Amino acid sequence: MRQSQLLATTLREAPAEAETANHQLLLRAGYIRQLAAGIYTYLPLGRRVLRKIEQIVHEEMGAAGAQEILMPAMQPAELWKESERYEVYGKELIKLQDRHDREFVLGPTHEEVITSLVRGEINSYRRLPLTVFQIQTKFRDERRPRSGLLRGREFLMKDAYSFDTSWDGLDESYVRMYNAYQRIFERCGLLYRAVHADSGAIGGEGGSHEFMALSEIGEDTIGVCSVCDYAANLELAEVRSPEGEQEVRTIRGDQPAAEKFHTPDIRTIEQLEQELHIQPEEIIKTLIYEANGQFYAVLVRGDHEVNEHKVTKMIGASNISLADYQAVQHAAGVESGYVGPVGLSLTVLVDSAVAAMESGIAGAGEKDYHLRGVVPGRDFSLKHVGDLRNVLEGEACPNCGQGVLHFHQGIEIGHVFKLGTKYSEKLGATYLNDSGKSAPMIMGCYGIGISRLLAAVAEQNHDEQGLIWPQALAPYNVHILLMSTKDKEQTAVAERLYAQLTSLGIDTLYDDRDERAGVKFKDSGLIGIPVAIIVGKDAAAQSVEYMDRKASTKEVLDITEAVMRIAGTLK
Amino acid sequence: MRQSQLLATTLREAPAEAETANHQLLLRAGYIRQLAAGIYTYLPLGRRVLRKIEQIVHEEMGAAGAQEILMPAMQPAELWKESERYEVYGKELIKLQDRHDREFVLGPTHEEVITSLVRGEINSYRRLPLTVFQIQTKFRDERRPRSGLLRGREFLMKDAYSFDTSWDGLDESYVRMYNAYQRIFERCGLLYRAVHADSGAIGGEGGSHEFMALSEIGEDTIGVCSVCDYAANLELAEVRSPEGEQEVRTIRGDQPAAEKFHTPDIRTIEQLEQELHIQPEEIIKTLIYEANGQFYAVLVRGDHEVNEHKVTKMIGASNISLADYQAVQHAAGVESGYVGPVGLSLTVLVDSAVAAMESGIAGAGEKDYHLRGVVPGRDFSLKHVGDLRNVLEGEACPNCGQGVLHFHQGIEIGHVFKLGTKYSEKLGATYLNDSGKSAPMIMGCYGIGISRLLAAVAEQNHDEQGLIWPQALAPYNVHILLMSTKDKEQTAVAERLYAQLTSLGIDTLYDDRDERAGVKFKDSGLIGIPVAIIVGKDAAAQSVEYMDRKASTKEVLDITEAVMRIAGTLK
Repeated sequence: MRQSQLLATTLREAPAEAETANHQLLLRAGYIRQLAAGIYTYLPLGRRVLRKIEQIVHEEMGAAGAQEILMPAMQPAELWKESERYEVYGKELIKLQDRHDREFVLGPTHEEVITSLVRGEINSYRRLPLTVFQIQTKFRDERRPRSGLLRGREFLMKDAYSFDTSWDGLDESYVRMYNAYQRIFERCGLLYRAVHADSGAIGGEGGSHEFMALSEIGEDTIGVCSVCDYAANLELAEVRSPEGEQEVRTIRGDQPAAEKFHTPDIRTIEQLEQELHIQPEEIIKTLIYEANGQFYAVLVRGDHEVNEHKVTKMIGASNISLADYQAVQHAAGVESGYVGPVGLSLTVLVDSAVAAMESGIAGAGEKDYHLRGVVPGRDFSLKHVGDLRNVLEGEACPNCGQGVLHFHQGIEIGHVFKLGTKYSEKLGATYLNDSGKSAPMIMGCYGIGISRLLAAVAEQNHDEQGLIWPQALAPYNVHILLMSTKDKEQTAVAERLYAQLTSLGIDTLYDDRDERAGVKFKDSGLIGIPVAIIVGKDAAAQSVEYMDRKASTKEVLDITEAVMRIAGTLK
Repeated sequence: MRQSQLLATTLREAPAEAETANHQLLLRAGYIRQLAAGIYTYLPLGRRVLRKIEQIVHEEMGAAGAQEILMPAMQPAELWKESERYEVYGKELIKLQDRHDREFVLGPTHEEVITSLVRGEINSYRRLPLTVFQIQTKFRDERRPRSGLLRGREFLMKDAYSFDTSWDGLDESYVRMYNAYQRIFERCGLLYRAVHADSGAIGGEGGSHEFMALSEIGEDTIGVCSVCDYAANLELAEVRSPEGEQEVRTIRGDQPAAEKFHTPDIRTIEQLEQELHIQPEEIIKTLIYEANGQFYAVLVRGDHEVNEHKVTKMIGASNISLADYQAVQHAAGVESGYVGPVGLSLTVLVDSAVAAMESGIAGAGEKDYHLRGVVPGRDFSLKHVGDLRNVLEGEACPNCGQGVLHFHQGIEIGHVFKLGTKYSEKLGATYLNDSGKSAPMIMGCYGIGISRLLAAVAEQNHDEQGLIWPQALAPYNVHILLMSTKDKEQTAVAERLYAQLTSLGIDTLYDDRDERAGVKFKDSGLIGIPVAIIVGKDAAAQSVEYMDRKASTKEVLDITEAVMRIAGTLK
């Protein structure tokens, strides 16, 4: 492609709202343009990268035995009512009506459509297992679209769905997809981790893994073991109990009764720590949550954070929320800051680390007072004890116990779920098993954010000059930079090189523009094609410079040598 | 692909609403399934055909120098207000609001988005010409979705847009796309015609051509010359004036005055013909149209039909409508059936064939009366004469004059338009020309209905058994039919053949199902893969049957011979 004809304008500056490197650089280098908040056009360079990702995903899905289909974006609202997600999904679900006032949604995901399709197509165990996939545009009305392609409102996804007759079968389908995901992300040159994850709004009874591209700008925190291959989303990472913490302590008879002391205007852990010189580990923090219209007290140590996901699970609720100031007053009979477990008439959920304390300091349940010498099991019930907190960086790995957990930020680029029978039961996707009985199909679902993956790769591969694509995803393999279009010899060499590379089937971008060398270098650095061939003053001697974008190295090569080098690296 | 695993259920009968062959067969053979009216899921077989079409389009667009981009489906309503199409487009435009009540439309086409994109990217003549394309899902809320993929509400399109600095440049871009379209439709094995066409709602000042797949079920009538390559949509096909008709007749002085005669309850051409034995060619038919809030009388011969497109053009209106009963009464002062040109106080538009009549019979402008001996030019004005009627089948070709026009029905599968500056002016897509002056870009736009093309090919290629795909689009190149899965020798031969063909990169569907031979033949006939290899009783002798789906021929071949034959036909 001649760059003089390419629809790709580079920008000196990115718009102010672009805060992350991938967003800034994809805009500046002319890969994407915003049409509306969270809605983007892919310019030719961006479209080419997208196609390369699609191709890799397509190949690996095929190799894993998944069959490609294509489902509609417009989905009848009734299907979402059948699955009971029409209301649950909230404002992120884009709704519309057709000319006859029939309700539709724009699909953010396709569990409903695929389940209703398969229920109509398959009725016997002999036609299972089945895995299908599609690469398709999805819609989600994000409250705050941000970071360019990372969190958009219209985006490209690969979604796949598996149907099995047994949980063992689902496990096999799941592993096949899991392995395919690993190959896809490796081929895309991503630094990533597969982590244990929560199933969220998709739901389902089985397990789930998230594939996380490691990046400082990631919104998720993941804990990764320094020794074994354990990795989990922070909300799922278990706390490994140190010796003794596991079991509830036997209460010693010789401990003094809890003692009230005056703490006017001292409400927070920080205040207790600074003004009374108390260590956070000595404090029992009491938080009030609301779930299913009921209030609960959750106790964690002063240096720990409540993990709401774990609390939700212990309660058995679908979601919980932290009580606001007024609700605390109402539920605990005292303003927040002085709430404590002693004498509290709510169900008290105790984190294991609190249960293991000999005694601690807690709110007194009375304004301006705290209690010291509060003994778990004596002064409040230990009926509900469990892992209710976030793990801390540096704690022991819950899996091997040998390593410690390191924290990373991650961008979710893929997610695999064992759905089980959640959708097949609601939508009636049953089959006749080998003894002629009807049973619901056991499902899995598997997503990759294609456009988000593009952004994640860009985020992981850039420097101060611009993007640096891995060859597998680069919009072009080689960038020829003709230094002076006025120089006949240089032009002739560049043209010959362009023709030669193109005829070898190598995707080549040829900067034939009538621009200064500085402009060309700058644009080339921004666009980030892995190899640049500079045709400059050495052209007369049939030599060019071979530049490796990532290593930032330059080497003078004979033209033929340069071509062979390129062909060699692409093999 | 093993058919036992393929998600493709064949149906004995198509749903009653499927009236056309392509719709019935694509459903019955398991290529598509309806999700809602005009909204379809592509099953694996359908998706494969779609991919093959996409690939051909992609290659030919690239070869024609078009750059691929991808624009969003969700488009801000403001853009459509800027182009003044928001209201004009009517109920076919799907509208929605996001969570912040901002208005969007789901794009049925992308002139607005591409024009606003290019106005931001390009400001100099040095970066033009430019042609971009995308393959993308479009939405149009058809009042009556029908015929499966032929007229859907969510469908796949290839749309391309060109930007030039001159009309000559646009002509070149247009021809390049026109030629690419020819190659695309030829590669898809379509029987088609490119015809002169109207620009319709897309608008624009230049010409336009439709590419029509010939088919009895097509909704458009096209006239095709028996000798030269002239072809035009009926609404655009010109009438070649026979000698003398061209010029307005000189009025002879010796003709008697028009004479009124009593015609109670005789209002139509048919009644005049049957009850008074008058030939339709002797009658002057007067129709009242409304345009721009004004009424017009249009005169055509009794055996001719008014061509509203030609009338619209002569008036210079954006659209016209036939006056209803009351409006006729109001405008012509008499009920319809007795309206005539004599003494009429409206502007009278006269078709050339009427102007060429010596005299004729017309309504008298008075209830229950007609006039005979009405002389054009004497009894009514010939100020506005022109071609205002539909051409008739068998009339002379307006281009060569040698051949006659034959009529065909066609399915519109592609459309190329010279838009000119319609959108660039409204949306401000200007550039600086070589003398530094600002000028609007001159645009063209070019569409192919990808999913409609699939349906058109299916419509043109089927017999009573089912579909018959051309190799270029077939979901698989070869269909192996294993007659008896219980027979070890047959199974071994079929498995070996399947492995061999697959390893040669030949797309093979292998019917390994435990089904009766009859079922397999029936399904194979429905699915329509061009070549079937039947592994049956001759397997023991290392022979198979080679069946050509289209020719319906069978031939016993040695296995190696069969493989070589297949590889040969695919080259």
